[in-house]
Amino acid sequence: MALTLTFLGKGGTGRTILAIAAAKQLAASGQRVLFVEQDNSPACHLLLETEVGCDPTPITTNLKAVQLKSAVLLERSWEEIKKLESQYVRTPFFRNVYGQELGVLPGMDSALALNAIREYDGSGDYDVIIYDGLASQDTLRMLGMPEILSWYLRRFRNVFMESDLGKTLSPFVQPIASSILNIDISGDTFAQPTQEMNNILDQGKAAVSDPNRVAAYLVTTQDEVAIATARYLWGSAQQVGLTVGGVLLNQSLLTGSITEAFDPLVVSLIPQSHSPNWQPIIDALPDFTQAQRAPKPINIDVNERKVSLFLPSFDKKQVKLTQYGPEVTIEAGDQRRNIFLPPALTGKPVTGAKFQNGYLTISF
Amino acid sequence: MALTLTFLGKGGTGRTILAIAAAKQLAASGQRVLFVEQDNSPACHLLLETEVGCDPTPITTNLKAVQLKSAVLLERSWEEIKKLESQYVRTPFFRNVYGQELGVLPGMDSALALNAIREYDGSGDYDVIIYDGLASQDTLRMLGMPEILSWYLRRFRNVFMESDLGKTLSPFVQPIASSILNIDISGDTFAQPTQEMNNILDQGKAAVSDPNRVAAYLVTTQDEVAIATARYLWGSAQQVGLTVGGVLLNQSLLTGSITEAFDPLVVSLIPQSHSPNWQPIIDALPDFTQAQRAPKPINIDVNERKVSLFLPSFDKKQVKLTQYGPEVTIEAGDQRRNIFLPPALTGKPVTGAKFQNGYLTISF
Repeated sequence: MALTLTFLGKGGTGRTILAIAAAKQLAASGQRVLFVEQDNSPACHLLLETEVGCDPTPITTNLKAVQLKSAVLLERSWEEIKKLESQYVRTPFFRNVYGQELGVLPGMDSALALNAIREYDGSGDYDVIIYDGLASQDTLRMLGMPEILSWYLRRFRNVFMESDLGKTLSPFVQPIASSILNIDISGDTFAQPTQEMNNILDQGKAAVSDPNRVAAYLVTTQDEVAIATARYLWGSAQQVGLTVGGVLLNQSLLTGSITEAFDPLVVSLIPQSHSPNWQPIIDALPDFTQAQRAPKPINIDVNERKVSLFLPSFDKKQVKLTQYGPEVTIEAGDQRRNIFLPPALTGKPVTGAKFQNGYLTISF
Repeated sequence: MALTLTFLGKGGTGRTILAIAAAKQLAASGQRVLFVEQDNSPACHLLLETEVGCDPTPITTNLKAVQLKSAVLLERSWEEIKKLESQYVRTPFFRNVYGQELGVLPGMDSALALNAIREYDGSGDYDVIIYDGLASQDTLRMLGMPEILSWYLRRFRNVFMESDLGKTLSPFVQPIASSILNIDISGDTFAQPTQEMNNILDQGKAAVSDPNRVAAYLVTTQDEVAIATARYLWGSAQQVGLTVGGVLLNQSLLTGSITEAFDPLVVSLIPQSHSPNWQPIIDALPDFTQAQRAPKPINIDVNERKVSLFLPSFDKKQVKLTQYGPEVTIEAGDQRRNIFLPPALTGKPVTGAKFQNGYLTISF
């Protein structure tokens, strides 16, 4: 199992450069590193000073890089699905559609990227995977997928499966889900692939919420818009259960008021430097394996009947707590999070909520 | 019907600032302008120097701004769907799920944003809509949706509807599509809502491919990575049928080699300036109603049996032409485009293809 790192910040603050520097640092220290680039423009070729393919390409000792191409990933997934379809559907209707025809719709990039990371992680070939996304908000949507998709499945399964339609639909829903998530369906019953999908999502959730498996670092400059964006992303990351390990203040020699804005995170000062002189940047990077020292997004205390959510950068009126369905829902940073409670607290009504020092504490 | 403008470029090149300047310019000239911000961080509040809500908020004379919140838009769509569901399904299964619970999955932001723009466009309240997206690649995925989703519907409908499953599925697929696209289902037959959805997609396609309705402008600085990204986005925009009207060279007094890199587009030099001094930027902006002078993404000549695709910035080996299915597929810039041919050319085999001066010319 690899450590997956990602860098969040406003565009133009140097996220990609710092991600490459982190990859170089970790590779130099003996870790087997894969740099995963979501952007398909030639920008990363310029920064890596070499062409990168859509399969891992060796860059230097211990360092490989891959540029994800959704059109290619979708084509590969589709061909898998067509093979599997015949096992599930009496009259296969996908066989006449070719993977080479399929266009890329919004959301597919994230789903295909997450699946690619999952496969690289599972390959055992890498100790560290560095994911360089497009907009950081997209990266958060992607990392939130296992939890949110699990919720949709959990919430809709009962209401849905009880209906006549649900029973008929199962064989259809499965291949679609598979084509996106590339799930290996080996059984011949419906229960089995559903269970397999749940397992994959559960594993994804477990990984995202474990700072020894997945961690993010904020990138900002001294620019006020960049700082406001980084702070917003800090809060938003908590909403997908992602630990933010620290702050990289790029192109700066003084922290100024930054330390206060991101308290209690450690701020690393990254001096300005230009390719090919990566060393001053590499030397200034923090130890990326220490993300678990940062505040955890969620703490559940069953004895005290309290759930604590770390929601920095938001004020009280930006956080909404509701209990419409069977779970407690937190809305903040244009994301909703349904808190999956342990059995002792499940279904219990909320008796109080307090927002203090960036923490929302809910009592049951 | 409004003119929708968007700005494509690498993050940090000043896209949002130029989008706001364009909004101010057009509002000052008497156009009723709506500035639509996808980013939910407080960055745009800082740049607009005021709070912006998730419904159009007046900024100055003729200028309103809105910050799209996917969680809110999804909640509103869902409540609509629940009302409509009862008309279609004997045992409504959505009624027990609340819009306030729904998390945002990848792709929903783009689908909800496109629908919001469609509604603002249809309201008749605006002459110009300026959309400021997150990553420009996301904006292209969003604007490519009507064409690509139409293709999926067209391609899958026959193979699918002929199957037993397809007949049973119809009432299910419809509410899901509706919840995302917010289609008003008023009829009680299956054919009608499908037709309505096709109409919406056809209208979307027609709008995106008409430079008097939707146009993009590239934003770059003199930085080589920014230039490479802008050139890549220029080519990629053609793949969704979007006309790129010109180039804004930000924070620069000299064009240098830029004119050549973006030939035949007009390059506007935008001087460096800081808020609140917007006037030097506004004065340097081009006339945004002249996008139709730029090269069209596609030209079909039925008499000559030729289709010409404008694919600047790509070289021959980055463009793939295939004819697996019933249509001709072009792959470039991590997007596939299935060319919808007029009846005279439909189903005809490709007899030749030539890539010259940025144009791919296909003969039938």
